[in-house]
Amino acid sequence: MKLAILGGGQLGKMFLQEATDYPMPVAVLDPDPRAPCAAMTGLFKQGDFNDKQTVLNFAQDAAAVGIEIEHVSVEALEELEAAGKRVIPAPRVLRIIQDKGLQKQFYADHKLPTAPFYLADSLADVDLERIPLPFVQKTRTGGYDGKGVQVIVTEEDLPKLRDVPSVIETLCPIAHEIAVIVAADDDGKTAVYPVVEMVFDKVLNLVDYVQMPTFLNANIRKRAQALAVELVQAFGAAGLYAVEMFVTQSGEIWINETAPRVHNSGHLTIEACANSQFEQMWRLLAGMPLASVQQYRLAAMVNLIGAYGHSGPAVLEGLDEVLALDETFIHWYGKAETRPGRKMGHITVLADHEPALKAKIDKIRKAVRVVSYH
Amino acid sequence: MKLAILGGGQLGKMFLQEATDYPMPVAVLDPDPRAPCAAMTGLFKQGDFNDKQTVLNFAQDAAAVGIEIEHVSVEALEELEAAGKRVIPAPRVLRIIQDKGLQKQFYADHKLPTAPFYLADSLADVDLERIPLPFVQKTRTGGYDGKGVQVIVTEEDLPKLRDVPSVIETLCPIAHEIAVIVAADDDGKTAVYPVVEMVFDKVLNLVDYVQMPTFLNANIRKRAQALAVELVQAFGAAGLYAVEMFVTQSGEIWINETAPRVHNSGHLTIEACANSQFEQMWRLLAGMPLASVQQYRLAAMVNLIGAYGHSGPAVLEGLDEVLALDETFIHWYGKAETRPGRKMGHITVLADHEPALKAKIDKIRKAVRVVSYH
Repeated sequence: MKLAILGGGQLGKMFLQEATDYPMPVAVLDPDPRAPCAAMTGLFKQGDFNDKQTVLNFAQDAAAVGIEIEHVSVEALEELEAAGKRVIPAPRVLRIIQDKGLQKQFYADHKLPTAPFYLADSLADVDLERIPLPFVQKTRTGGYDGKGVQVIVTEEDLPKLRDVPSVIETLCPIAHEIAVIVAADDDGKTAVYPVVEMVFDKVLNLVDYVQMPTFLNANIRKRAQALAVELVQAFGAAGLYAVEMFVTQSGEIWINETAPRVHNSGHLTIEACANSQFEQMWRLLAGMPLASVQQYRLAAMVNLIGAYGHSGPAVLEGLDEVLALDETFIHWYGKAETRPGRKMGHITVLADHEPALKAKIDKIRKAVRVVSYH
Repeated sequence: MKLAILGGGQLGKMFLQEATDYPMPVAVLDPDPRAPCAAMTGLFKQGDFNDKQTVLNFAQDAAAVGIEIEHVSVEALEELEAAGKRVIPAPRVLRIIQDKGLQKQFYADHKLPTAPFYLADSLADVDLERIPLPFVQKTRTGGYDGKGVQVIVTEEDLPKLRDVPSVIETLCPIAHEIAVIVAADDDGKTAVYPVVEMVFDKVLNLVDYVQMPTFLNANIRKRAQALAVELVQAFGAAGLYAVEMFVTQSGEIWINETAPRVHNSGHLTIEACANSQFEQMWRLLAGMPLASVQQYRLAAMVNLIGAYGHSGPAVLEGLDEVLALDETFIHWYGKAETRPGRKMGHITVLADHEPALKAKIDKIRKAVRVVSYH
């Protein structure tokens, strides 16, 4: 039995670190021969995971097929599923999630709370009376890490609108950004991780740090976990789902978006919990029992982002200072080159209490820099 | 900067799983093209780590050189060290440890407690009056995993004696077998893991399970850790050392033997402690600060041993039953073929208390079997 994974980036790399503990070879497909996964499995294949025939050829002798990126050929996954292979996520769920319009409509159809919205096929459909300023335009397909999202606050921002099929939604009066990762097996049984809270870097529009668990009150945590489970049960398919949510200023919880795969907000499960999200992914693909989500220690994760003004072969400055701190864990993704704003790695810290956690994060932020000398 | 590791077995594999989190490529040398490490780094090199020139060529462009097996060319390591490379363990320490005679003499010279012994160049030197029955003959060089060790209990066992240079030592009246892993940096600063206790399978003469920490009383634990540190300081060289000791029936602690590398008795540090022995190895090679040895959970490790009567492509039976247990972690080494008694992997379990730990170990032992259908 062999597993086949579409995508060879950092998520695939962390999956391989876990998967190599099991008696099942893992093949990885990625267009970049220098992808983080390339040197980590003897079954790396260079190729386009968006090309149907490439994916079909790649996965033909695998028992199960998984993804670490959403922009892959769903048609290929549908054929592979029809041919009897185990495919996680279910192609019909991936089809919904790949299109932010269908995704929003799914929430609405299932009465799951989300920001009020309408779908616009083009600029002509944008209606300031239907959803007044401030609002958000999200390109229906192809967005990633905040790309394809325009925030329209005043009339002066209107020229930023793109003339593409999009979701127009009310700008959420955000109090907190949280996420819940849920693993669901074939019988609909779920394993639900503690709620994480994300703090964003407003300039890069990337996660600044993630904390597990959030210190928000028990009622909000319970509601967020219940909502994530409700959504996953509405999908009705085995898989690992990262459900990103907003807590509004009035205390409501709105679903923002869902990733049907391992997710940046779950990286700290590697050190903080009995079993990580990558372990759940392996078990789901292999059809094995779900793993324990028990959390041992308070945890936070900071992304290592390529510094501005630096492009080229990556150098991590300050590693020795970081490693002088206890319970500090680096994950360098092994990308060949850094670029401004590129996710090059992350650092997870564990601690007894919040002040210790924040002190470590502050030290790390001052110590490390991802640069290039070329 | 590049790291070069001699040996590509399971210890190297677990090291690579950790090392890939850092911005430093790792090259691995092993004679077996199907070694566990072979598919895990783009810098795997097939070759004999006992051949001086092969090792020199392999490590010529590395900044630091490490080992995961002791039977390597010390001459090559000495030349590499003389050429200014960082070599862990220090070749002069490895030279002592490779020869069980020199190793025992080192303990004696430094007044470190160990079983009474003498050195015999050949059978003719064996003197039943000097050390009476029962005693142990240990081949001075080339032994591994209990191979090269003959226990001579009665005169009927005397024909088992081998006519090779060996150590003859008193058979220890063993009450317990314990081990302590110590990491020592360039300044002699040490990081000392909790004492583990090993239970042996008498038939295979292989570790049956390892528990961390031992439940032996605090006085014994303290003495064992102090003794391990004393030994490491006597070596006077940075490195990671696994010090195996006997607790005698009268409560003395005798050093049995030392491995200057990551060790089977330290595998449970991966899940039980803040940082594993493999993380310490990386930091030692990279010249980085030592890591935290803080233990979070009671832990035990069982080896997955090739079943009798089975040789060939390996199959692990019972994995699903094992994964149905919480806090149970499998490490499959990815060896191409199983053989009776071969270490094919291990399973670590964590628990709140001893009964839960033992119950899990019992379940695992009943559930899993490493076999071959060919």
